[in-house]
Order: sequence, then C-alpha cells, then structure tokens
Amino acid sequence: MSAIIGVDIGGTKLLAVRIDSAGSVAQEYRTDKPDDGSMMATAIANAVPELCGGDPIGALGVGVAGLVDHKTGTFVWGPHVDGVNVSLRDELESVVGSRVTVDNDANVTAFAEHRIGAGRGSSAMLMLTLGTGIGGAMVFGGEIYRGRGFAGEFGHARLARGDHQCECGQRGCWETEAAGPALERLARELIESDPHGSLAGALETRPVAGPAISAAAVAGDPQAIALIAQVGEAFGHGLASVITMFDPDRIVIGGGLGSIGELLLDPIRRSTGAARYAGAHNPLPTIVGAELGEHAGAIGAGLLAVEERAADE
Amino acid sequence: MSAIIGVDIGGTKLLAVRIDSAGSVAQEYRTDKPDDGSMMATAIANAVPELCGGDPIGALGVGVAGLVDHKTGTFVWGPHVDGVNVSLRDELESVVGSRVTVDNDANVTAFAEHRIGAGRGSSAMLMLTLGTGIGGAMVFGGEIYRGRGFAGEFGHARLARGDHQCECGQRGCWETEAAGPALERLARELIESDPHGSLAGALETRPVAGPAISAAAVAGDPQAIALIAQVGEAFGHGLASVITMFDPDRIVIGGGLGSIGELLLDPIRRSTGAARYAGAHNPLPTIVGAELGEHAGAIGAGLLAVEERAADE
Repeated sequence: MSAIIGVDIGGTKLLAVRIDSAGSVAQEYRTDKPDDGSMMATAIANAVPELCGGDPIGALGVGVAGLVDHKTGTFVWGPHVDGVNVSLRDELESVVGSRVTVDNDANVTAFAEHRIGAGRGSSAMLMLTLGTGIGGAMVFGGEIYRGRGFAGEFGHARLARGDHQCECGQRGCWETEAAGPALERLARELIESDPHGSLAGALETRPVAGPAISAAAVAGDPQAIALIAQVGEAFGHGLASVITMFDPDRIVIGGGLGSIGELLLDPIRRSTGAARYAGAHNPLPTIVGAELGEHAGAIGAGLLAVEERAADE
Repeated sequence: MSAIIGVDIGGTKLLAVRIDSAGSVAQEYRTDKPDDGSMMATAIANAVPELCGGDPIGALGVGVAGLVDHKTGTFVWGPHVDGVNVSLRDELESVVGSRVTVDNDANVTAFAEHRIGAGRGSSAMLMLTLGTGIGGAMVFGGEIYRGRGFAGEFGHARLARGDHQCECGQRGCWETEAAGPALERLARELIESDPHGSLAGALETRPVAGPAISAAAVAGDPQAIALIAQVGEAFGHGLASVITMFDPDRIVIGGGLGSIGELLLDPIRRSTGAARYAGAHNPLPTIVGAELGEHAGAIGAGLLAVEERAADE
C-alpha cells in the first residue's frame, strides 16, 4: 500500500503525518523546524522513511508558513526560516523521487477543514486563524483561492478601529486589535489598573502570555472572559467588513486563540451581526470553530497532494 | 440567425443591446427603468422584438442593480425598484419562451470587462466602480465569484480612515471617503473656504455635482485636479487592504467617477503602493480603467447568457 504523507512547517516545529485516504492520521513524526531554506528538503526527506516504513510514496504534500508560490512549488519568503526563493518542490522531488505538492500552511489547513472538518459542504469558505496574528485562507467552489499566490493576509488589512502601530510598519492592521498580542496588551493594562483583581491573581507568571489568559478564561475568571470577549468584539467588527466583500457561506475560526471556542465565538457572532451591512436582506454566515486541531495543516497537505495527483492522471 | 440580447437595469434607465458573438453592439434600445419589480419582465420583453427583428432569441441575459440571486434568477431587493423577491427569470422565460440568465449588474459588467475589455486574460480580477458609491465584482478563474450571492459590496467595508456617517447606517464605510459624494463634499468645503478660487469659478451651478467637478479637472482646473487626487488617495488607501486579502492580478476601475482616467488612477496607484503590505515581496497588481463604458453591463449580460447556454448543452 502506498503512503500518503503530509508535512507542516510552522513557526517552531516540523510536523509530518501519514494519513489514510479519508484523512485520518495513522502515524506522526515531529522535529524542530529547519532554520534555513536550504535545509527544508532534507528535513522533510528525513521524515519520509519514518512514516512510509517499506511502502512507496503515494502522495507527498508540504505546507510552509510564509509566502509560497504553489504553481512553481517555491518557498518565496517566510518569517521563521532564513533564505528566499527556495525551489522546495523541485529539490524535494529529486530527493524522494516522487511528485510533491507545496503550498502555504494556511491554505492546506483550510483545505483540510473543508474536506474533512468544519468546512465540509461549504461552497464559499473562509478560514481565519487567530494566534500571534490573523491568518486566512479561502476555499471557493471546493478549490483553494490563492489570487496571485499570496491571498489571505487578513491580519494586515486595515480593519481595526484604533490606530495601533503594527509590526509590519503600517498602522491600524486588524491583528493589532484582534489577535494574541492585543489580548496580552489588554491584560497588562487591566492588571496595572487593577493589581488586586481576579486576573492578576489567576496569572502566575509575568509577562502575561496569551495562552495563560485563555486558560484563565476557560477556568472561569471573569476578567479573563471579558478580555477574550473584547478581542472577539474587535475581531467581529472587522469580520463584518470581510463578509460584506466576500459573502462566504461559512467562516471557520482556528489558531491558538481561536481554539478557545464559544468564549470567543459568541462575542464574534454578536459583534459581526451588529456591524453587518444590509443584515435584513443577507443573514450572517455560519461562524464555527475549526475541528482538526494542530494536525490540520499536515493532513491538508497530504489531502491536497492526493487530489492534485488524481487531477494529473 | 438567432439574436443575443443583453439587458442592464440601472438606477435610471433600462439599456438593452443586441450583440454579436464577439460582444460588439449591433443595436441598442433604451427606456426608463421600471419602477416596480412586477413590471420588470414586461419592460424587458418589450425590448426583445425591437432588437430581434424577425430573428429567434439565441440567448437573453439581464443584469439588475441590487441584490440578485443568480441561481434562482430572483431579484431580491434593490434601491431603485420597488418590490422584493421577484422571480424575474421565471416570469421572463414564460413571456419570451426562451432560457434567461439574471444576475447583479456589477457582476455582468465585470464579466464583460473580463471577456472583451480591460480584464482580458486575468485569472483573479477585481472590478471596482466609483460612482455614487463603490460597487464591486470579482472574476476568479474566469468565473464570476458570488459568495452566497451578494459578494462585492466593497463600498460598505469599513476601509475609510475617517468616521463619516454612511447612508447605510454604519460609520467609516469606504465609500464615504472615496466615491462621488465625498468628492462633492470636499468641493463644497473648498468653495466655502476659498470662494474666489479657481474651482468656485469653474463650477457654474450649485449645489456642486460630481460630474461637473470631473469635467473641471479634465479641463485643467488645478483645484478640481487636487480634489480628484484626494479622493483617489483615499480610495488607494482602502484598496491596499483589499489587495492584502484578495491578491488579484488585475484591478479594473469603472463607474462614473472612475471613467475620468489617469487623473484618478495615478493617485490611486501611488497611494495603494505606499499603503501596501509586504510590498517588497509582492508587487502591486495592474490597476487599469474599464474599457467598455456604459454598454458594459448589457454586453456582459448577453455574453454570460451565451456561456451559460453553452454549458447547459
């Protein structure tokens, strides 16, 4: 039996999986992410025998954080890996002797959610991931929409209400108000103004970190819940504009902060509904949490490789 | 020879054309727009014999301003025609005895520009029309992208830098700064602060109207040129965010204000370039003026009807 392999190279790790044709994970392999683009093909090739055992490669797909040219399989640039314009697909094909698919990590994550997760059956799906920033990807008519290759950088659309400086050099980017760092900023401000409040007590370490705030909210801390709601409200305000443009039928929310669930999704839905254009004629699309967790990117890379191989044959 | 007929029902008029298979207009017919949805099918049917002569209908397409459900051919709601949820396609098919295609006017306009105008060859085209508002439509992979049916309401995405009240009830909508009414507001303010300036002299009638300001700019009035540039700059600022999300390879600018050409397009390109995310890795897409003028919607309705008929056969 030939092996379907999917690989996800993110900010800190390389996660590779062997999946069956339905997308279920049969086996996984983890290692540190390669630090340099020139080491990516080798790092991936090292994972292959671990997952294939003696089986031949049936399909091999890779998702990488950063700008990826899917047509040529080139890693153009990324924030976590040195080197630009790495011909990852060609390098990897020559090492493993098999057809390879390379895409952006957000694209393959959305693809997995569309095929076997929270996006099943959607004809115009938007996936947004809330973490250190706001990433995004689109699956329209069942296919990944890429624009010229780099579509979906939602976090840097200027959809914030305030005018915070963004790390990208611009001001007012959506992610300055509606992602992890904004949550941490709000928590710092709250703790400073209310040093004996419940949140100050709930968070043991300084500086405060997003996951700890999320954990405090899940544990029931009212101040943490209010902060999550405030970020969700800012996110929903921008999302209303996104819906006005894209009119998706489903919005899948993922990412580290997104995985907190209804504590975030409920404020998002309320805020989006209130800020929605022509709401009377055009009801809110379904807004749901992602289903596939941290394996989504690797699963999606494998599933995409399978479909592209089938389309070639 | 069977006739290809395209109809565009806009804010004031009904424009119908007979085109050849290449989209060239052979004959046109104009009348006032119907005031009520119940009169739309009859108004269109009246145009048909005028354009067909004795020939049978080969294809008949209709574009209507407002929310249109293309799948069911329903006119859901529009600002210029009374009545909601009109089954326009079914009504018209039963009158003319031929297959009919119904879509939003912005969609068929963009479709025409893609097939025979400024969007030829684009794989991810965005058309934006600047007039009393900012309308939009998308042609991705050669097909109209509709979302759930109502995608492209760009004017009401909150991409303005200021916080002007919009007629839609929200604040900060893009079109409050970057469309005709914003140009008129800027002109009124300028004339008030500089009643003996060149613009006050160039504009003969009060209240000032957008087309007169455009005409003054084309005639070389420096204050009018500066106002057009100011609106273009506000438009470009929002467009940078749109590009960050959609990453189109071509942006076609149309509409009444858009038709002024380089006096508007140049400031748009400059402003978009300056506000662009990750510009070093991702150059600006091509930004061009529309080519087909006021017939574009009717032409596109006809061309879309031809392609949908062919897909059915």
